[in-house]
Amino acid sequence: MGGEQEKWILMVTARTPTNIAVIKYWGKRDETLILPINDSISVTLDPSHLCTTTTVSVSPTFDQDRMWLNGKEISLQGGRFQSCLREIRARAQDVEDKKKGVYIKKEDWQKLHLHIASYNNFPTAAGLASSAAGLACLGSACRSLYGGFVKWDMGKEDNGSDSLAIQLADEKHWEELVIIIAVVSARQKETSSTSGMRDTVETSALIQHRAKEVVPKRVVQMEDAIQKRDFPSFARLACTDSNQFHAVCLDTYPPIFYMNDTSHRQDYQLCREMESCRGNTSGPNAVMIARNRQTAALLLQRLLYNFPPQSDTDLDSYIIGDKSILKDAGIKDMKDVEALTPPPEVKDNIPPAQKSKGDVSYFICTRPGGGPVVLSDETQALLDPLTGLP
Amino acid sequence: MGGEQEKWILMVTARTPTNIAVIKYWGKRDETLILPINDSISVTLDPSHLCTTTTVSVSPTFDQDRMWLNGKEISLQGGRFQSCLREIRARAQDVEDKKKGVYIKKEDWQKLHLHIASYNNFPTAAGLASSAAGLACLGSACRSLYGGFVKWDMGKEDNGSDSLAIQLADEKHWEELVIIIAVVSARQKETSSTSGMRDTVETSALIQHRAKEVVPKRVVQMEDAIQKRDFPSFARLACTDSNQFHAVCLDTYPPIFYMNDTSHRQDYQLCREMESCRGNTSGPNAVMIARNRQTAALLLQRLLYNFPPQSDTDLDSYIIGDKSILKDAGIKDMKDVEALTPPPEVKDNIPPAQKSKGDVSYFICTRPGGGPVVLSDETQALLDPLTGLP
Repeated sequence: MGGEQEKWILMVTARTPTNIAVIKYWGKRDETLILPINDSISVTLDPSHLCTTTTVSVSPTFDQDRMWLNGKEISLQGGRFQSCLREIRARAQDVEDKKKGVYIKKEDWQKLHLHIASYNNFPTAAGLASSAAGLACLGSACRSLYGGFVKWDMGKEDNGSDSLAIQLADEKHWEELVIIIAVVSARQKETSSTSGMRDTVETSALIQHRAKEVVPKRVVQMEDAIQKRDFPSFARLACTDSNQFHAVCLDTYPPIFYMNDTSHRQDYQLCREMESCRGNTSGPNAVMIARNRQTAALLLQRLLYNFPPQSDTDLDSYIIGDKSILKDAGIKDMKDVEALTPPPEVKDNIPPAQKSKGDVSYFICTRPGGGPVVLSDETQALLDPLTGLP
Repeated sequence: MGGEQEKWILMVTARTPTNIAVIKYWGKRDETLILPINDSISVTLDPSHLCTTTTVSVSPTFDQDRMWLNGKEISLQGGRFQSCLREIRARAQDVEDKKKGVYIKKEDWQKLHLHIASYNNFPTAAGLASSAAGLACLGSACRSLYGGFVKWDMGKEDNGSDSLAIQLADEKHWEELVIIIAVVSARQKETSSTSGMRDTVETSALIQHRAKEVVPKRVVQMEDAIQKRDFPSFARLACTDSNQFHAVCLDTYPPIFYMNDTSHRQDYQLCREMESCRGNTSGPNAVMIARNRQTAALLLQRLLYNFPPQSDTDLDSYIIGDKSILKDAGIKDMKDVEALTPPPEVKDNIPPAQKSKGDVSYFICTRPGGGPVVLSDETQALLDPLTGLP
């Protein structure tokens, strides 16, 4: 680091995926170190559909650490942010940028401040692990650090040194899976995951049995189902684990309700007979995993029949992500949606008036995807290279 | 029993109460003998508000066993009915009716047929244990055989000989309790208790832990709370046990949902801060137990504010049972309902448009009550004394 008058800014931008649990993490054994009471398994989602972009910049002109989430400045006073920042500084090494003629020595990091900007291309805090994606660039939410199928091993050590993410298989291993997310409500969850899981650990009479007896067996079965691409076993395990997560939430005092009638209905009526299953979200949004594109197209037809968009919504903003599934389903425009015939099981049962127009904000179609990447294209940075501000 | 031409009919009519569980029975250890996997505890409800009236008649002119439930003839072919009828015949003793000059010997019962009529003064199969009430006169659903507070001891014997109802305290022991039932929907439950609990025992990974580890401790605590009339402990145990029942239903595969958004909302928004708690129903109906009449009047005000009747419903048919609670709440007519001021916690939060008009069919106000009684007044019989038909 040179003289007092230096005005340089260095920055790096990374894109991180989000993930959906198929065996759920719910409950911590250490609140400060964020160590879980059981292993969990997730599928990383394709970052070209759902991702968080984060730019971190450093400059001797910054007089404090600052962060912007989705364009809005947020406080970094929370313990989790402070832990992340402390770890980043402790782990940072010597950095040289020859082009800018900047050399930062390892010990300089303790004096330098950071500006961080993070942007989710999906609703924040609606149960889609946006906090996981947002923090993955900063070293937490370890399951989002790999693509494909990832296990977070709870570890045994008190200091958390063996509580690590492990890639079970990459995103090419089982690429025919299609994931459809129904975003039921964009409002914030009533109970945050952090306080919800604390309440569950403190008050549920069932959670320890789940963590110690039920999940360990399911994790072994799920790893096996993933290795063998055994969809029926995968689907059954994901569904039963998701239900059990909601069960221990209900067994919490006061009870936590993350599902509502719309998510029940989607789940119950749509998934049972399809070759698809529900993934885990701690929110009312429903995540459905279809065996392949053909099943996904049928599922999407059924979803659109039961949950048509409101009249002023255009199809292009109602189905986002991998829109080619829509094509496979033979749907080009709203006329095709209106022309959908009722699926066999609802024939004569659900009059059109009971169709749930507007209950779903939009659907996201996606697939298993890769892990975080550093973006070399500087135009994707979220901070101005001259000011270090958004 | 005399000659062939005898035309006599003997009949007896009994009134049986229903009950609401505060520690729930869910899961059988023997399907045929109907033996539970855990003890349960209930409060018997005042039969002057909720009851089943059953008339049993016998005559040499009857050529088969027949039964009418709420005026409609039903089949007696089911195993449970057959077991009851077999037990009734086996236990029947010599009966003499001097006025009619009839003498039935113990062994004659094997040849005589019965006509049975049963009438519930509340919706059938909507989670209010109407089957319990309906069968109590016939020897099953043992918790309804006593008034007040009743434990059904699961017993240990394979033959069920020690699986018995025990009265913990009579209805005078804690008579200030008020029970308010919100009948959310009169439609039949989607899953019957019988098949639902079978599915839970077969598929839930949590039910055995509940039955063996959680409930036995709760039963001891609940007995203690009842003896001491310790309302906070009583309420907390009843609520957590009700939630855990819904939790193991969710943990069933496929999952069982007995609650809906309306029951959630009532529960969550209304009960938490009141001196009241939820009882257990396997249906969407909410059962609330208030500490005393004063609390019940406040609770009823709040319920009527949040769940007003539809414009064409009159108050007299919207609040049934013990209508004096309505008087305590200062409500005489619909104008008083419309004039209710929002409870403090919803002020400015719930605009009038979001109030849930019509979500509740009606409310029942009641209290702990006595056990079954034989009605000596023959005009209350449900069968014609001359024809033996309804």
